[in-house]
Amino acid sequence: MIVVMQQGSNEEQVQAVIDRMVELDFTVHRSTGVVHTVLGGVGPEERLNPAEFEEMDGVKECHRIIAPYKLAGRHYRPDRTRIGIGSRTIGGPALWIAAGLPESDAAQMRAAVAAIAEAGAAAIRPRPVLRAGDDLLKVAHDAAKPHGLSLIVEVADAGEVALADWHADILEVPSRSMQQHSLLVELGRLRKPVILERGHAATVEELLIAAEVILSGGNDQVILCESGIRTFVSARNTMDLAAIAVARKYSHLPILVNPSTGTGRRGMVPAMARAAVAAGADGLLLDVQPGLAVPTNAAALTAEAFATLHAQLDQIAAVTERGE
Amino acid sequence: MIVVMQQGSNEEQVQAVIDRMVELDFTVHRSTGVVHTVLGGVGPEERLNPAEFEEMDGVKECHRIIAPYKLAGRHYRPDRTRIGIGSRTIGGPALWIAAGLPESDAAQMRAAVAAIAEAGAAAIRPRPVLRAGDDLLKVAHDAAKPHGLSLIVEVADAGEVALADWHADILEVPSRSMQQHSLLVELGRLRKPVILERGHAATVEELLIAAEVILSGGNDQVILCESGIRTFVSARNTMDLAAIAVARKYSHLPILVNPSTGTGRRGMVPAMARAAVAAGADGLLLDVQPGLAVPTNAAALTAEAFATLHAQLDQIAAVTERGE
Amino acid sequence: MIVVMQQGSNEEQVQAVIDRMVELDFTVHRSTGVVHTVLGGVGPEERLNPAEFEEMDGVKECHRIIAPYKLAGRHYRPDRTRIGIGSRTIGGPALWIAAGLPESDAAQMRAAVAAIAEAGAAAIRPRPVLRAGDDLLKVAHDAAKPHGLSLIVEVADAGEVALADWHADILEVPSRSMQQHSLLVELGRLRKPVILERGHAATVEELLIAAEVILSGGNDQVILCESGIRTFVSARNTMDLAAIAVARKYSHLPILVNPSTGTGRRGMVPAMARAAVAAGADGLLLDVQPGLAVPTNAAALTAEAFATLHAQLDQIAAVTERGE
Amino acid sequence: MIVVMQQGSNEEQVQAVIDRMVELDFTVHRSTGVVHTVLGGVGPEERLNPAEFEEMDGVKECHRIIAPYKLAGRHYRPDRTRIGIGSRTIGGPALWIAAGLPESDAAQMRAAVAAIAEAGAAAIRPRPVLRAGDDLLKVAHDAAKPHGLSLIVEVADAGEVALADWHADILEVPSRSMQQHSLLVELGRLRKPVILERGHAATVEELLIAAEVILSGGNDQVILCESGIRTFVSARNTMDLAAIAVARKYSHLPILVNPSTGTGRRGMVPAMARAAVAAGADGLLLDVQPGLAVPTNAAALTAEAFATLHAQLDQIAAVTERGE
Repeated sequence: MIVVMQQGSNEEQVQAVIDRMVELDFTVHRSTGVVHTVLGGVGPEERLNPAEFEEMDGVKECHRIIAPYKLAGRHYRPDRTRIGIGSRTIGGPALWIAAGLPESDAAQMRAAVAAIAEAGAAAIRPRPVLRAGDDLLKVAHDAAKPHGLSLIVEVADAGEVALADWHADILEVPSRSMQQHSLLVELGRLRKPVILERGHAATVEELLIAAEVILSGGNDQVILCESGIRTFVSARNTMDLAAIAVARKYSHLPILVNPSTGTGRRGMVPAMARAAVAAGADGLLLDVQPGLAVPTNAAALTAEAFATLHAQLDQIAAVTERGE
Repeated sequence: MIVVMQQGSNEEQVQAVIDRMVELDFTVHRSTGVVHTVLGGVGPEERLNPAEFEEMDGVKECHRIIAPYKLAGRHYRPDRTRIGIGSRTIGGPALWIAAGLPESDAAQMRAAVAAIAEAGAAAIRPRPVLRAGDDLLKVAHDAAKPHGLSLIVEVADAGEVALADWHADILEVPSRSMQQHSLLVELGRLRKPVILERGHAATVEELLIAAEVILSGGNDQVILCESGIRTFVSARNTMDLAAIAVARKYSHLPILVNPSTGTGRRGMVPAMARAAVAAGADGLLLDVQPGLAVPTNAAALTAEAFATLHAQLDQIAAVTERGE
Repeated sequence: MIVVMQQGSNEEQVQAVIDRMVELDFTVHRSTGVVHTVLGGVGPEERLNPAEFEEMDGVKECHRIIAPYKLAGRHYRPDRTRIGIGSRTIGGPALWIAAGLPESDAAQMRAAVAAIAEAGAAAIRPRPVLRAGDDLLKVAHDAAKPHGLSLIVEVADAGEVALADWHADILEVPSRSMQQHSLLVELGRLRKPVILERGHAATVEELLIAAEVILSGGNDQVILCESGIRTFVSARNTMDLAAIAVARKYSHLPILVNPSTGTGRRGMVPAMARAAVAAGADGLLLDVQPGLAVPTNAAALTAEAFATLHAQLDQIAAVTERGE
Repeated sequence: MIVVMQQGSNEEQVQAVIDRMVELDFTVHRSTGVVHTVLGGVGPEERLNPAEFEEMDGVKECHRIIAPYKLAGRHYRPDRTRIGIGSRTIGGPALWIAAGLPESDAAQMRAAVAAIAEAGAAAIRPRPVLRAGDDLLKVAHDAAKPHGLSLIVEVADAGEVALADWHADILEVPSRSMQQHSLLVELGRLRKPVILERGHAATVEELLIAAEVILSGGNDQVILCESGIRTFVSARNTMDLAAIAVARKYSHLPILVNPSTGTGRRGMVPAMARAAVAAGADGLLLDVQPGLAVPTNAAALTAEAFATLHAQLDQIAAVTERGE
């Protein structure tokens, strides 16, 4: 940590800051400049709240200098993490594309899965299975298997993990639950891939802190997912595609993008899916409603649109060389 | 609902929209204008996603015209809700002020409670009790009783409700859990006051939708709480005090303000506490660390500062006539 | 316009709204529903402030239904606008890429221009020319000519237009001046391409309203430019690439993207440049500092990085078929 | 400035950073820690872009430690600035309240001014005078004089300053022009009070940087004004009242609040005006439309509402002791 004292701060104020740093188990290094006195500290930064020091008399500012995560950080693993699921890999040179299946019954789901598999998808995520009873979950499971598709199940609460774990190949934390601590702890106990969606008001750093909770439970199969943030542009979420570059700079974990949640508009999904791949995403989650000429879900693509887009994405991926 | 067709939309497009409205059980009223055709619909608006229609061919825009909540709405109750807890009332003419007690042990807590009670507080909220085991919870409970203080316990997860319910007079949902559906459902089963903190990226409408989940479970003792939103001002949360006026316009529920979370800075808490009362808040949650000359929690006040502020707040409340 | 009355509003309130609509020259169409009375109005919507009606007694909400721009709108021109400058075209099938040249002296500029031209750029934008006296402006002009590069000059104020017009092929409004009305009016008098950067806190609709001011002066060569918005992600601007899709849906004007301003970080520029092209941008503005192994401008690329990126962008553009 | 090197950065990288710091005229102090090497620099921080260093190899982060303004800063003047205008003072113990007069003709303006003066206002700001020709400006001037009211005129562009200066007692920069450099320079040449409205997407630091431009021209009569920021709450601006505390902590300049622009809604203006005073504002700008039972401007108060509110504000001001 670094504390910069205000211009004109007195010796007593400097000493009070040093005392508090020592009390928190920091080793203090003092550097008295012409204008500002700067105090450096080495210690348990993960427990530090810089605001505590900034509210002390005579303090100008306080910065944390060690990232508040470790296992999720770039330094912890020299190479980027690759996660193999079935015959596919997330984080490798090939794109990994999953199809979200909004509202559907058993018959629709079986038909949908076949169409999606043919278009080259790696996984399906039936939307409302868990809370609609697990009948549909079994249907999804049985339909996906013969096509070699992985099954993703969303879990919003610690209490949902056990049932989801029974059926799913991959669990997914929706953005509104990214900071649900008891859920993250529970997922850390599994040895199964977890897709962790960034909260709509969370920074990439906060996403990595949440990932750290899962990783420190011993589950090292965490996949990040950008799905839009909330900004003054109120008609839709704003997709923060630079987050891909930020995540790759600070972490070894793979990162997906969800343009369906990120835009909420079918008309913008293909452009943003292409952009995400061009920006270096390891894969995508895309809502699809096969069997409907015009999907009723505003963000869902038809099976045809999905297949066309999938082919385009592969071409863009070839230009941008991923997986390095 | 209202659908405005684009200038130049054709009859086929209009008919497709009407068909879909009928399919969703809306009664349709068509009004053909010089420039735009407008379709009005009466039906189950709570299930409507306007974006679905806005992605249909020929549609310019689609608006929901009934609020997506009912029990929380102004029309449901002509008078504002008052919630009596012990000898105090939230939503009445007098301010209701609770003290948050950050990190403390049993001895500190007992001393703190006495100081806080003397300053006129109505309730205490010991911060880390639930997850630190329930010993401290019992200490808090036993310390509060003789002073007539109510006990608030934070619950972030459905699994925490039972234990909290056992000890607490009031349960509190922290902002990061405002959209945790299973938690809200669980709280709807209680018959006990619930303070529902607005999420840092939630609108007032979304806060009222969350309140509706609790209310529709049969628990009508919901208290709203504004505690800052996330904006481009990154050094702190931005307190949205106009939310008090918005909540009072659209809902009968009482509303508190939490300037400690809202600013995260002791130096700003008194000004924002005064502002909240002047803007019409029914009460406040304020972090206090009695017994420390300089609180270690960056947002906490000393007992003396709390007592001085409390007196000032009562004077401002007298000017603004609340509880009407 | 559409006014939705509150549930329970009375006849007198409805009449007051109708009177005010008539006073503002709207023709009123009343539709009395089971729950809500809805008033439709046809008239001078560009002068309408919906908030005025929403503050009247008994009104629930008020919506404008005609876009507050006309010349910039999709309906005004069936085909997308193409703007020819020298031998190049903005808005056609080929990408149009301009290089921004931050801080440099005359010698550096001459060397830079040659390197940039070779990499395939269409234009240069020397950064500080206008305010540094016009010597450098002449240098830029003379250097660009032999290479067939167009010259872009930034104008932040109405008073700067005359001098810039003398030297430049294209004028550019920086984002902080997007709502500078006197400047927009002045640019409307020219018959020369204007790049209009979206303000960092402006919606796409507000960008089109600003474009409308230039267009209604008779200058129909307006080029939009997305360069990042301000959000809670405070370390950088957030690039809103979905704005490209929004602009293409509502307007016929071409749209560029500026990932240098949009990220402020050299390390993110290539990824976001690729993403912008994949999302359908007609071209890019990219800061380049040729002749430096490590550019001192944090967002600038070396000449080599620029050339490599340019080649990649052409490949992505080939996949996405633009100009339609 | 402080540069924190990444864990594992090598000697060559450290040396490159030191070289660049020296090149920019910084004196460097190196401190080699267990985990991180930290480089402190003393030099021309106002010209520093921390992102430049953060993009260098091996650098973790770079912070500026001297505020990018000096004349506007707290240290420059031990006491808070008071600005006397006529018989009133901005920044003293008494509130200073100005009335904005939206759209009106000469007769309306004369009647309005009398009503406003009686309610205790200190100044008037006729909205559209400058661009509507200066007839109305003269009317406003002549009407204000006999009542001892000061005249505020808005200037959005450097070209408007001369005419406004001729008539006005105070010039006002609207929020959209806060970063209009040529305008700020022009205002620095005057010796007359300037109200500088914070941009809707500007931080308080950026507001103080803009104030610095005026101050360094020699005009020391700058008054800050908070008038709402743009956030995800899209129905209105969000008033950032904690900005008052921030401005008072870092600057000696007085600060006003404009709840009319800040909310855009008459129904919220009184609550937010009271809150602003309770939070320590030195005064307010409030839109008033006397002579109309229901103002047509959505944010304007009637003369009666203005008078009632003024009295309440004085009572709240008495509780909060300002001007210290």
